[in-house]
Amino acid sequence: MTEFGFIESLREQFSTLPDNGFEGIGDDCAIYPLEGGDALLFTSDTLIENIHFLRDAATPEEIGAKSLMVNLSDVAAMGAQPVATLLAISLPANISEEWVKRFIEGYRQVSVQYGVPLIGGDTTSSTEGIVINITAIGRTQQSHIKRRSAAHVGDTIFVGGVLGGSAAGLRNILEGSTDTEATHLHHNPQAQIAEGVWLGKHSCVHAMMDLSDGLASDLRHILKASKVGAVINIEKIPIHKDATIEDAVCGGEDYKLLFTVDEKSTEEFCTQFLERFGYTPYAVGRIIESESYDIEWREGEKVFYPDWQGFSHF
Amino acid sequence: MTEFGFIESLREQFSTLPDNGFEGIGDDCAIYPLEGGDALLFTSDTLIENIHFLRDAATPEEIGAKSLMVNLSDVAAMGAQPVATLLAISLPANISEEWVKRFIEGYRQVSVQYGVPLIGGDTTSSTEGIVINITAIGRTQQSHIKRRSAAHVGDTIFVGGVLGGSAAGLRNILEGSTDTEATHLHHNPQAQIAEGVWLGKHSCVHAMMDLSDGLASDLRHILKASKVGAVINIEKIPIHKDATIEDAVCGGEDYKLLFTVDEKSTEEFCTQFLERFGYTPYAVGRIIESESYDIEWREGEKVFYPDWQGFSHF
Repeated sequence: MTEFGFIESLREQFSTLPDNGFEGIGDDCAIYPLEGGDALLFTSDTLIENIHFLRDAATPEEIGAKSLMVNLSDVAAMGAQPVATLLAISLPANISEEWVKRFIEGYRQVSVQYGVPLIGGDTTSSTEGIVINITAIGRTQQSHIKRRSAAHVGDTIFVGGVLGGSAAGLRNILEGSTDTEATHLHHNPQAQIAEGVWLGKHSCVHAMMDLSDGLASDLRHILKASKVGAVINIEKIPIHKDATIEDAVCGGEDYKLLFTVDEKSTEEFCTQFLERFGYTPYAVGRIIESESYDIEWREGEKVFYPDWQGFSHF
Repeated sequence: MTEFGFIESLREQFSTLPDNGFEGIGDDCAIYPLEGGDALLFTSDTLIENIHFLRDAATPEEIGAKSLMVNLSDVAAMGAQPVATLLAISLPANISEEWVKRFIEGYRQVSVQYGVPLIGGDTTSSTEGIVINITAIGRTQQSHIKRRSAAHVGDTIFVGGVLGGSAAGLRNILEGSTDTEATHLHHNPQAQIAEGVWLGKHSCVHAMMDLSDGLASDLRHILKASKVGAVINIEKIPIHKDATIEDAVCGGEDYKLLFTVDEKSTEEFCTQFLERFGYTPYAVGRIIESESYDIEWREGEKVFYPDWQGFSHF
């Protein structure tokens, strides 16, 4: 069973339960509308040693910072401000107190950077590797929430930054080079938290999510949820200098934003984004009508049919 | 470092961060007051195979049901109604799809029993054992929340049910008997969810928590948080028929409620509890002034000094 198959099956099995006011499984976060027009958002993710990270390839501070960063990214990728986190950490007998202290210091630095308090902690022992689970909570106006299902035909498709660096870094690490520019990027992803919150406030931004499994996989989630297709111009995809096109399209963990913008507002939107952040996001294609909810890859006028899937931890 | 030392150190390290309206680390759940007088409560716990459960000692349904039950217990033990959960599960390669399906079925049955939707899921692979993380969310009126810090001198100390059965069951399992009455109790703890929510509404109930690590350990958390001491009359502790006094006092995972009640209201309270639930909780002692925040164990008039600590997974 794939991760997405599993989540789909959960959704079905629990469909007869009352929703208690929550909008559940489907997006990166669950949504809880509050009286007064705001909503809380919730997401929970587990990171496992030797699956999601290698203990000796990164510093404990980097592992702590990245663990938190990728969860805050899930919240901001729906347009919400992260407001709190809970950390449950399970530690094997062979871990030092020093390692834990440094891990927490990395976690704390990102918490300070984004003003997000840690409101709960659980710690247990583990039999083998380190297990990290983080629950992140966000808050925003209900009308600012960006869902995967909101892409419209004609929308311009944007990615928020250069792609493939993290995948190139992972390759370097697996080949034994742990100190390249790309490995540094892999261990220190710069998620677009401020950008996500800002994009949430702009109604011309329709669908949004973060790129954790690669454009080929993540864009398909938007297409399926929105019941549309996409044309992607591969020459417009911003590729990290050490990465291949496959790294950029199929590689995971870039944590840049993927979003669609109303075609009529695209130019004005880019001007405003540039004014606010000092750089421009990358227009890589557009949303089209399609019954297969798939991606048409083009280079110039030429259509490609590459076997590009996403990255899967599962 | 102990679990409690770790959480204490987290609290200090994050004390300079803004609280964003959350009341954080200290109780079983973090608290988020909402406009209008209600509050949301949050708790997150990780269960690891061979630390918290043995895959072959229980059915997958039992493991799924218990995982959820103990998290709902944390919410209800603060007087709140559980309203939603998130489940992050990590699975090793040697797990069957059948096992997962049956685990989810057990989880679903408890969700249905308490009307609690599953609003988010994450699944990843793990290198070795099964890892289960559950985040539970509760809601109640702010004035109904019961904290560990609210015990008053003179309060009667109650436990909600018979203790030690789970510890006796665990001993049976470790000795190879997996099908005794006590092992059944160990695998199918009946947390006092409805009782916790009801107790939340009664202002004569002061401090409350659930017994997950044993009376000796958990009561000390209340004493420390409330800056008081306690006398416990050991002949009044309700002990499971297959359990020893040590099982009842130091054993974990009974998931019965531990709470203190205003001495003036104790009699009337017991009558009302009996009317509502058809049984009476057990008065086992009272809160006293003490600067050591410790427990005085008595049998009749005789004071004991047993080396009774709690149960620790860590």
